[in-house]
Amino acid sequence: MDVAQVLRMNGGEGDYSYSNNSLLQRKVISMTKPIIEDALTNLYCGMNFPQTLTMADLGCSSGPNTLLVASELVKSIDKIRQKLGSNNEAPEIQMYLNDLPHNDFNTIFHSVPKFQNNLMRMPNSSCSPQFYVCGVPGSFYTRLFLRKSIHFVYSSYSLMWLSQVPDMTSTNKGNIYMSTTSPPNVIKAYYEQFQKDFLMFLKCRAEEMVPGGHMVLTILGRQSDDPCSKECCYVWDLLAASLNDMVSEGLVEEEKLDSFNIPQYTPSPKEVRKEVEKEGSFSINCVEVTEVNWDACTSDGDDQGYNMGKCMRAVAEPLLLSHFGESIIEEVFERYTNHIKISMAKEKTKLVNVTVSMTRKI
Amino acid sequence: MDVAQVLRMNGGEGDYSYSNNSLLQRKVISMTKPIIEDALTNLYCGMNFPQTLTMADLGCSSGPNTLLVASELVKSIDKIRQKLGSNNEAPEIQMYLNDLPHNDFNTIFHSVPKFQNNLMRMPNSSCSPQFYVCGVPGSFYTRLFLRKSIHFVYSSYSLMWLSQVPDMTSTNKGNIYMSTTSPPNVIKAYYEQFQKDFLMFLKCRAEEMVPGGHMVLTILGRQSDDPCSKECCYVWDLLAASLNDMVSEGLVEEEKLDSFNIPQYTPSPKEVRKEVEKEGSFSINCVEVTEVNWDACTSDGDDQGYNMGKCMRAVAEPLLLSHFGESIIEEVFERYTNHIKISMAKEKTKLVNVTVSMTRKI
Repeated sequence: MDVAQVLRMNGGEGDYSYSNNSLLQRKVISMTKPIIEDALTNLYCGMNFPQTLTMADLGCSSGPNTLLVASELVKSIDKIRQKLGSNNEAPEIQMYLNDLPHNDFNTIFHSVPKFQNNLMRMPNSSCSPQFYVCGVPGSFYTRLFLRKSIHFVYSSYSLMWLSQVPDMTSTNKGNIYMSTTSPPNVIKAYYEQFQKDFLMFLKCRAEEMVPGGHMVLTILGRQSDDPCSKECCYVWDLLAASLNDMVSEGLVEEEKLDSFNIPQYTPSPKEVRKEVEKEGSFSINCVEVTEVNWDACTSDGDDQGYNMGKCMRAVAEPLLLSHFGESIIEEVFERYTNHIKISMAKEKTKLVNVTVSMTRKI
Repeated sequence: MDVAQVLRMNGGEGDYSYSNNSLLQRKVISMTKPIIEDALTNLYCGMNFPQTLTMADLGCSSGPNTLLVASELVKSIDKIRQKLGSNNEAPEIQMYLNDLPHNDFNTIFHSVPKFQNNLMRMPNSSCSPQFYVCGVPGSFYTRLFLRKSIHFVYSSYSLMWLSQVPDMTSTNKGNIYMSTTSPPNVIKAYYEQFQKDFLMFLKCRAEEMVPGGHMVLTILGRQSDDPCSKECCYVWDLLAASLNDMVSEGLVEEEKLDSFNIPQYTPSPKEVRKEVEKEGSFSINCVEVTEVNWDACTSDGDDQGYNMGKCMRAVAEPLLLSHFGESIIEEVFERYTNHIKISMAKEKTKLVNVTVSMTRKI
């Protein structure tokens, strides 16, 4: 599987689009707002109110959350500037929106003019911020920007995606992710791929960021030291269960299932911290763990299981489509949604987020 | 007509797409290569071999020419560096590709990875250039970049497009552009819109470019002082003739034709020079006029008139579609192509390009 070609959130504006199924991710963004504001305050004051600021959202996707993040960052800077009573004029802000080349940038760009107009007419702003939006196509596991050109890097719910499916010496039989029944080799391969990718990410950002620049990353992760703990693996176990059912009914070939593995790793705070320290260019300001219920996918009164099913479909459909083909898609997601419904009726299930805030050393 | 919403080259990869009908524009790009190389040499040496360079292609469109320009700029820098025997390492280059938000950026972005790989494996390069591509959605008649952040600005065949159809006090009866039968008010309105737009363009770039930065602009224009001279107006006269035929046959409403005007102005070298001097931030290095035959649309052996017809359709279809609706499109372009064929059989017709190279004053 060529992850860079295949990995993307479901496009368009339909029922299963990421655009219409990203409430959970939105909630996570709002939960990390205080950490972002702290980081931006430190950045803006630490650099003595610079006239220009460059910011990057890595793995911006395409949907309402994309420009929401951009808008929150711009508003935060304006709020900080006013709170500090700074007499400096509002800085000009360059906002780089990055994702893989097959992300739907056209849809983002169509709404940029309206978004800029709205922000420039912000109430309570003494002086409207000027900001410029760019799209940057490419993997964040490679260099994306000129050296020493970025002040602030943000990424939410993207860095758990690996650059490739780990190379495994054993078959991950009956599983599609790390699981309690996975061979130790498989767990090791997943962890090593995460280490390699995250280290490369840090090296690239270290080159691109200005000394004193800040970075806030939120990664879908886990609390536990056990990489197969339920908090991170259960959501994929349920999809594996659906696929196994279909294998036993002859609807999916067993070999097809055995050769499918999700290119994701959900790290613990300890593992995140370890790589940052190993790379050495950043000092960690804080590592925080938060939890979000699966029902955060749901507006009040909606069917919670159904919505979590749609949310997972928006995220996983392109991966399944490329491996299994179109014919099984409806069936597998119907079964997956049923598994999710049953599970949510029985117990409160949560996703764990690891947020790390760090500063590029000078 | 909201030009920012409507103006774009025909998208996709079809028979009438800009992608497949932009040979003429490609020829113009290659004709201006010596001017670009001069400008880049002056820039690169004048700045004493900077480690990073930022370049912008304004009105980049979407098609083979888009990354061709980017690639020519990167290759030129590498060539200059080697020619000068500079021991400096290759600079990192940031390439901003700008066009209106409805340009098809997705198609450009899909081919970026392959394009970057090819360029990084350039033969004869001692040290491969590193360069980064971004898409910038927005009108170049507004600010697009941070202040003092751009070293080199390039634009080819874009600046003749106005930000809006000029406000006219008289009806431009039977015409769709400036013509010998247009009322003087109409000619005046067109020229004033050009002045206003071009001045705004220069003001914005003056803020964005670093002192000593260079800019090379190629504009579809004219030699003559007469804004209604055949060299620039004839190509639209033929389209007007097709529409007038259809009015007389009752296929197009007369009012519809009278309210349609092409948002374009083809300036003379004198007019271009005048605005640059009026704005005052740039010193002009050279203004050159070149000509390109209409048959530059054609590969050898192809039907010249048919190809010029397709070339004009790729450029003008979205404008006509938005004003007249879809029903007349096939008919009008068939007639237009016939007019073009007859004209090309009778005489050699040319387009005139005005290229200006200038430096941001320090």
